[in-house]
Amino acid sequence: MFKTIEWKNSSVVLLDQRKLPHEEVYLCCRTYQEVANAIKTMVVRGAPAIGVTASMGVALGALSIQAKNFEDFASQFNNICTLLHQTRPTAVNLDWALLRMKKYMGDHRDVSLEQLKKNIVLEAQKIALEDVDLNQTLGQIGQSLIENDDCILTHCNAGALATAGYGTALGVIYAAVQNGKKIEVYADETRPFLQGARLTAWELQKKGIPVTLITDNMAGWFMKKNQISKVIVGADRIAANGDVANKIGTYSVAVLANRHQIPFYVAAPLSTIDFETKTGDLIPIEERSITEITHFQGIPIAPEGIGVKNPAFDVTPAELVSAIITEKGIARAPYGESLNKIKSQTQISKCKTKTRMIYY
Amino acid sequence: MFKTIEWKNSSVVLLDQRKLPHEEVYLCCRTYQEVANAIKTMVVRGAPAIGVTASMGVALGALSIQAKNFEDFASQFNNICTLLHQTRPTAVNLDWALLRMKKYMGDHRDVSLEQLKKNIVLEAQKIALEDVDLNQTLGQIGQSLIENDDCILTHCNAGALATAGYGTALGVIYAAVQNGKKIEVYADETRPFLQGARLTAWELQKKGIPVTLITDNMAGWFMKKNQISKVIVGADRIAANGDVANKIGTYSVAVLANRHQIPFYVAAPLSTIDFETKTGDLIPIEERSITEITHFQGIPIAPEGIGVKNPAFDVTPAELVSAIITEKGIARAPYGESLNKIKSQTQISKCKTKTRMIYY
Repeated sequence: MFKTIEWKNSSVVLLDQRKLPHEEVYLCCRTYQEVANAIKTMVVRGAPAIGVTASMGVALGALSIQAKNFEDFASQFNNICTLLHQTRPTAVNLDWALLRMKKYMGDHRDVSLEQLKKNIVLEAQKIALEDVDLNQTLGQIGQSLIENDDCILTHCNAGALATAGYGTALGVIYAAVQNGKKIEVYADETRPFLQGARLTAWELQKKGIPVTLITDNMAGWFMKKNQISKVIVGADRIAANGDVANKIGTYSVAVLANRHQIPFYVAAPLSTIDFETKTGDLIPIEERSITEITHFQGIPIAPEGIGVKNPAFDVTPAELVSAIITEKGIARAPYGESLNKIKSQTQISKCKTKTRMIYY
Repeated sequence: MFKTIEWKNSSVVLLDQRKLPHEEVYLCCRTYQEVANAIKTMVVRGAPAIGVTASMGVALGALSIQAKNFEDFASQFNNICTLLHQTRPTAVNLDWALLRMKKYMGDHRDVSLEQLKKNIVLEAQKIALEDVDLNQTLGQIGQSLIENDDCILTHCNAGALATAGYGTALGVIYAAVQNGKKIEVYADETRPFLQGARLTAWELQKKGIPVTLITDNMAGWFMKKNQISKVIVGADRIAANGDVANKIGTYSVAVLANRHQIPFYVAAPLSTIDFETKTGDLIPIEERSITEITHFQGIPIAPEGIGVKNPAFDVTPAELVSAIITEKGIARAPYGESLNKIKSQTQISKCKTKTRMIYY
């Protein structure tokens, strides 16, 4: 099997997702600038994977710092975080991972700088390990919503390739299959970057799960023909009220699912929930290069000089979301309340014991 | 300007739409088999254009017939029509054009075979001329629905390239602009064949009409952002009850327009209305090659051996259609009645005088 992100001999090794499905090439980043560039150019993508990769970028950067004292170290460390923060604006896991790394650094000024560097590297690796673990937990929780013989539509890629391993939306599907359920998947190709055609189709094929690739504009038609029983997608940022920013096209899928009374589930770790952002309207939406639309692998597919818009994400209002599946439980509307309950429950369970609840 | 279809020196000259927007290449068909192949391989596409091209294919075929008598001629003529009929199943204009050519042939057994051949060629050219004329009429009628400063979303290509000239959905836009209205267009790229990116964008750019190219999965998001005020599309076949078969993805656009209370208009000539087919469920939907989805200009974009579905069309139920614009008037729901009124009015007006009515 493949490794999406790996810390190896003081470098960050990334599966180059731009080359999939035809080449399984690994890119070795030796500096934090190389990591930043890999995130920006989508060598690695998917909100959880971006968070994990950024934390490893911070670790790489920390190792390279030449500092006389903690304040000097901290100042350079913060600059590294700032550069990594500027790579992509929508996925909140990036902010989350950088904040966690900053907090870790700030909380450990009592050790030598050499020891601190080592510990920062370990913290980044811990984030990666935790991500795989929480995806598996999320998958197990989410698969309770899946029935035998379901045909599940997914958009973009929220699988092992979008995380440190296992996956969120696809994690739910993997867990359902592990629980003996017979599942079929329809994958939207997901223009313009084709994460569905290139990544989701590849990942599911590798796992031996039956998958049918369709163009984005076919999803509604297959819903109308009663061929889709559920929709599961990932998320790049979930606002406090349950509005979900995810890959462009997710909103259309949610509207179509709503018309056909098909459950529309969002699977995402708690690190994707941005409690500081009240509603989806306040989520920054990245605009990417127009050449992603006008060209295909360097070949032009539209007239020269044509006007183009390329928002990389859209926001699905909470009212269209049937449930949000997290590693700490399933939230249902009203999300303002249920997400908050999960959050506070998590804080309590940290002190007491591990509990997994379903919040309706 | 370009010529989509032209009868020239006993051949049918087609603008090769597979090569647009980068090359303006014309393909010269000298046999009806070449014409059939050009329709099948989408050198020419768009329901009205398919009808016109097929009638010219019949004319080419008629010229090549060696027959001793009318019965022999008619038998060979029918075989030619059958072959042309088998090219593509969804666009009813193909049936319409072939039926008209057959009827013309059957009604003119009183002339010599040489004269009949000449007349058949003239009839095919007449169909082409009528198509341009009725598109202009349809455009003028339809533009009454368009307001100054409208931003109109269109899907696929229902322009001059989809007809013998001028266009249906784009014809309405051209007429609105000719009437001094300021119009902006959003064009869905229309996967997998990219008629929006390659054809609509090119055609509108040539006409100097501001156009923004988006991927199909963005349409809903721009509706949510209040950037689309109307939708106009063409049609491949309209059932007697007003259900509309059109390029795959049209149904999704209609659902999204409905959610956002944006008018969803269909522009099509009467020859696209199939009064014999009661509802959209009965319209045959063409399945095309999976390589249209798995490959781009010969380059694979999906894993080898992946499952794929490729329906070329979908059906939008009449309840989602705000109006059907024809060359004889605008039909509104209930369409069973309004389309029938247009049909009977047309038959009456043939006897009496030319009238254009709006049927609500």
